[in-house]
Amino acid sequence: MRPIITLLTDFGTADGYVAELKGVLASSAPDAVVMDLSHDIPPQDVEMARLAVARYWRRFPAGTVHLVVVDPGVGSSRAALAVQSDERFLVGPDNGVLSPSLLASGSRAVSLPVPASATATFHGRDVFAPAAALLAAGAPIDSVGAVCSDPVLRRTPEARRGENGSVIGEVIAIDRFGNAISNLIAPRGGRIEIAGRIMQISRTYADAPVGELVALTGSSGFVEIAQRDGSAAHALQIARGTPVVLRPPRA
Amino acid sequence: MRPIITLLTDFGTADGYVAELKGVLASSAPDAVVMDLSHDIPPQDVEMARLAVARYWRRFPAGTVHLVVVDPGVGSSRAALAVQSDERFLVGPDNGVLSPSLLASGSRAVSLPVPASATATFHGRDVFAPAAALLAAGAPIDSVGAVCSDPVLRRTPEARRGENGSVIGEVIAIDRFGNAISNLIAPRGGRIEIAGRIMQISRTYADAPVGELVALTGSSGFVEIAQRDGSAAHALQIARGTPVVLRPPRA
Amino acid sequence: MRPIITLLTDFGTADGYVAELKGVLASSAPDAVVMDLSHDIPPQDVEMARLAVARYWRRFPAGTVHLVVVDPGVGSSRAALAVQSDERFLVGPDNGVLSPSLLASGSRAVSLPVPASATATFHGRDVFAPAAALLAAGAPIDSVGAVCSDPVLRRTPEARRGENGSVIGEVIAIDRFGNAISNLIAPRGGRIEIAGRIMQISRTYADAPVGELVALTGSSGFVEIAQRDGSAAHALQIARGTPVVLRPPRA
Repeated sequence: MRPIITLLTDFGTADGYVAELKGVLASSAPDAVVMDLSHDIPPQDVEMARLAVARYWRRFPAGTVHLVVVDPGVGSSRAALAVQSDERFLVGPDNGVLSPSLLASGSRAVSLPVPASATATFHGRDVFAPAAALLAAGAPIDSVGAVCSDPVLRRTPEARRGENGSVIGEVIAIDRFGNAISNLIAPRGGRIEIAGRIMQISRTYADAPVGELVALTGSSGFVEIAQRDGSAAHALQIARGTPVVLRPPRA
Repeated sequence: MRPIITLLTDFGTADGYVAELKGVLASSAPDAVVMDLSHDIPPQDVEMARLAVARYWRRFPAGTVHLVVVDPGVGSSRAALAVQSDERFLVGPDNGVLSPSLLASGSRAVSLPVPASATATFHGRDVFAPAAALLAAGAPIDSVGAVCSDPVLRRTPEARRGENGSVIGEVIAIDRFGNAISNLIAPRGGRIEIAGRIMQISRTYADAPVGELVALTGSSGFVEIAQRDGSAAHALQIARGTPVVLRPPRA
Repeated sequence: MRPIITLLTDFGTADGYVAELKGVLASSAPDAVVMDLSHDIPPQDVEMARLAVARYWRRFPAGTVHLVVVDPGVGSSRAALAVQSDERFLVGPDNGVLSPSLLASGSRAVSLPVPASATATFHGRDVFAPAAALLAAGAPIDSVGAVCSDPVLRRTPEARRGENGSVIGEVIAIDRFGNAISNLIAPRGGRIEIAGRIMQISRTYADAPVGELVALTGSSGFVEIAQRDGSAAHALQIARGTPVVLRPPRA
């Protein structure tokens, strides 16, 4: 089986940066299959990248190397990491973006050396891609760096209990469809309150008439607020951080 | 030969949805070559996706599996389809997006079962990708679902005859360059009238001076209206549905 | 080793053009690995494409075929080129976009025949992709066209000497992060003057406080002007062509 190297960056693709990075991989990991996951993470948005990593890192087969380059601190003293976790590998900056894998039990992180030849502004090409190539070729994690015992960790903010059995959460992401994804989990249903609106939790988008708002449990398990064939974020003028309240089903 | 699975979606790539879907394919169809065709179909624009499918589905080799996920009705009662047509396979929602393959003679459609474990909002990951993986691995079409005898069909609107030998059509798509693609075919040339402007049909974009409008037969065989080094859609303030008239060549 | 075909276009991916081109490659070069580099070059922006090509063409392994389709003159009398240079191949229009490879010593260019069946508007599909497939399959460069001895060449504008040891350059590109890349090289450091602002050349983005402007030597070796966690292009209202002056370090 050819090893897989996945790419998640905030580079966009209009500039040739992704192209350079792929050239390094094609030259140094000729047997690997390179898969684009996204180059459209909003520039320097570590939190959006972390949420994406949480979605996908375990869905790929054992042995996959996930290269994640959303790196506003490039060239500073932030460490460069490689992680082994649940038989997958992840490579990227030590800014919390790799947290979903670091928080899994049995994970192991090492700090990559930065060669003298590396530029101060493009570690994706000069540090992370070469390390990903080594791991894809079967190099043990401990051969590519020195143990890093305190990597930066970021966590999804936790919802908290409110009055009368309610739970108070917030919007943690707005997706491409304008759906607002919260940090609330509602296995028993209930009502969602956001931006002065209250709605029952439905099963799917299509349960609402066109143009209406709908709350439902999305594909990542969290409650999200959508507008049927529209953008809930636009309709409600909400953004990351907007409070969302889960009220229990009426008795 | 490794089988090919192509991807056409309206997911964008900023959110991790494409990444999850690719993870499912990498795990369940490890021998397949996964090729991105587009993740930038405008959200929920079934018609644009259908037109794209019409362009590409037959250009890939026999055995290719085309996964098409533009699915505003996800989680509703709309069926989930797999199609075998002209030795290719297509998988996607039953909303007309697969029509170009369904309308070809000898096509066969089956309705995919939706497993109890599937989420109501992400059939791309939970229903369509697993079916595509099975087909890529050689599973017969009838093994992945039950015959569907009346799939939803969408067709390009037909032009109609007007007065004095003219033909009345409409704009069916605006492309990335602002070119307006019509449903008119003009094998003998003629004049095109749109938004109060009349122009001869030329051979190619470069036949017009910079900034001028030009009508020509585009790469899909339909007449399109372009602006040399500009956007005809912007210059003429036209959109999908704008009438376009083909007048015969002057005698 | 499977040969690599890379793709750089200004097609975007919303329309199905990239999909058609990939279908041609999948059918005619079934053994090749197709790698997307960008489809987001601004429409018809030959200069941005040329700068991207300069970044990546040599980073891929020997034998790689680079397909570059940014082609505002499609269908005109401009030639269609294939180039062999430093063991790589490049295929694209004769408008200067392939200059980085043509300017390397030992390069060889041929002019591709345009088959009668080719459309006048989509040479990417009908002319360039078939030629790329032949080269990927090992066809010698001279078998795919006739020698072209005077291809169009484009060069990065050269900086010129100013007064008091200064060097006067210009912005040659704005990247996705809003960084302004100049044509200045500053191996000994110094001060940068742009849009009425003067700044020392720093080592990396993170050397500046959040929101502040910073000049540094970027990953391609040129001086660039950035805003920490922001867009320098927006903050300074600068664009391609804006003058940039390098002043020597204070004695």
